Amino acid sequence: MQIIKTIKDMQTLSKKLRSEGKTIGFVPTMGALHKGHLSLVRRSKDDNDFTFVSIFVNPSQFGPKEDFMQYPKDLKGDLGKLSELNADIVFTPEDNEIYPEGFSATVNIGALDDRLCGITRPGHFNGVATVVAKLFNIIMPGRAYFGQKDFLQSVVIKKLVKELNFDTDIIVCPTVREPGGLAMSSRNIYLSREERKAAEVLFKALKHGEGLIRKGMDDLPHIKKEIAATIKSEPLAKIEYVEIVDSQSMEEMKKIRRPAVICLAVKIGTTRLIDNLTIA
Amino acid sequence: MQIIKTIKDMQTLSKKLRSEGKTIGFVPTMGALHKGHLSLVRRSKDDNDFTFVSIFVNPSQFGPKEDFMQYPKDLKGDLGKLSELNADIVFTPEDNEIYPEGFSATVNIGALDDRLCGITRPGHFNGVATVVAKLFNIIMPGRAYFGQKDFLQSVVIKKLVKELNFDTDIIVCPTVREPGGLAMSSRNIYLSREERKAAEVLFKALKHGEGLIRKGMDDLPHIKKEIAATIKSEPLAKIEYVEIVDSQSMEEMKKIRRPAVICLAVKIGTTRLIDNLTIA
Repeated sequence: MQIIKTIKDMQTLSKKLRSEGKTIGFVPTMGALHKGHLSLVRRSKDDNDFTFVSIFVNPSQFGPKEDFMQYPKDLKGDLGKLSELNADIVFTPEDNEIYPEGFSATVNIGALDDRLCGITRPGHFNGVATVVAKLFNIIMPGRAYFGQKDFLQSVVIKKLVKELNFDTDIIVCPTVREPGGLAMSSRNIYLSREERKAAEVLFKALKHGEGLIRKGMDDLPHIKKEIAATIKSEPLAKIEYVEIVDSQSMEEMKKIRRPAVICLAVKIGTTRLIDNLTIA
Repeated sequence: MQIIKTIKDMQTLSKKLRSEGKTIGFVPTMGALHKGHLSLVRRSKDDNDFTFVSIFVNPSQFGPKEDFMQYPKDLKGDLGKLSELNADIVFTPEDNEIYPEGFSATVNIGALDDRLCGITRPGHFNGVATVVAKLFNIIMPGRAYFGQKDFLQSVVIKKLVKELNFDTDIIVCPTVREPGGLAMSSRNIYLSREERKAAEVLFKALKHGEGLIRKGMDDLPHIKKEIAATIKSEPLAKIEYVEIVDSQSMEEMKKIRRPAVICLAVKIGTTRLIDNLTIA
């Protein structure tokens, strides 16, 4: 497993592999790797000749009051996990390699930056789109892998790829969950043991909503209310949003129609968690 | 010479050539090709295994009151000229191939969109950056060729490439001029015979400014006044701006220092022309 820190070395290697006709799979991460990330690496290993993983905590996708400074870091642990899976290349650039002094470009993804997390985290998805555009240009993967846990992010990335014509297939892999249903997230490390237990209410609420829809209920405000009630049954939980949207357009719906996705953002104590469930 | 109209066919071909280790040079144009464009094609032919030329009048870089609808088109003539030069591939997409319904992404290049033409043509350089980002992703050239006539555009493209990490070298080729000094431009076709003669005042004014600087004059407001006076000696000319800036940063200067570039935008009748001269 090779570790690369500069854009130049990364592009030289990527160009060499592509000129030899090799396929490249790419898993962009912010580190603090968990089983969700590792499932993406495994999938990429299956699909491609070479698997590249980036570890970069992207400052431009954090708001001024968010947890950029505290975001968990465990480079040594991450490299151990990736080495065990035989990832081929790990790209670990410094902040000023990605955002040198005077940097001012942004990729604005338009319509989606004002939906769901885009509302409560203004600029977040433009920060994501900008860094992913950069990473795609640096690595030029044939395929890139994202987790479904960040559902709207995967929609933003697909839109980025389609609209700016990146020649990269986006593959969204299923959310990996703890036995109690909690979606794997690097931020779960913030949770106390009590909060971690409380956080299981997100998946419980999603399943409750799914059950109602599968039973044929189509009264959207009522279903949202039911989901919210489940979450509120947990005293440590504070709802940021409960939304049910068209899983392709991310448009809100008047009545339930499929394919739909139930999206949640909930604070457990001071930790903001998101989760979602698609209903095809 | 092969003509390609879809992004998919273009990417398939480009990917094939790259996987065979071939080098690709790219000349993006809005058609109505003149000797300036053709000099870029010749240079690309010298430098690369394959030369791709795009012909696409990019709506997103025109303001609502600008000449998008009237912009000169001569596809048959263009293809004849390119075929004579043995260009390899011409990419001629329709508008909705590049900007399908619902398109909303933009590449915002930041700092430079408020300089010179960026002021009088708001959004222009973001439109340029967006379409060039798309074309680079579609064609993935190792080198791309631009004319110095659009000086700030070439600075914007270099910034785009640097900040979003496109793996493409930007090569800026000298402005090609008519015998009387008028810079070649597709928009020269708008000029009457009388206006075309009058338009020679732009180059005359640039040379006058250059002469003063080379003589050691460093009083910037005075030099700008001298340049403006030369232009005003031509009754058909109306100045939009006369600026002398650092040719690397595009920053304004208090006193002349080099490398500098004198940039002009002047209306001759109803036709807006730009020109510039670098002083190393």
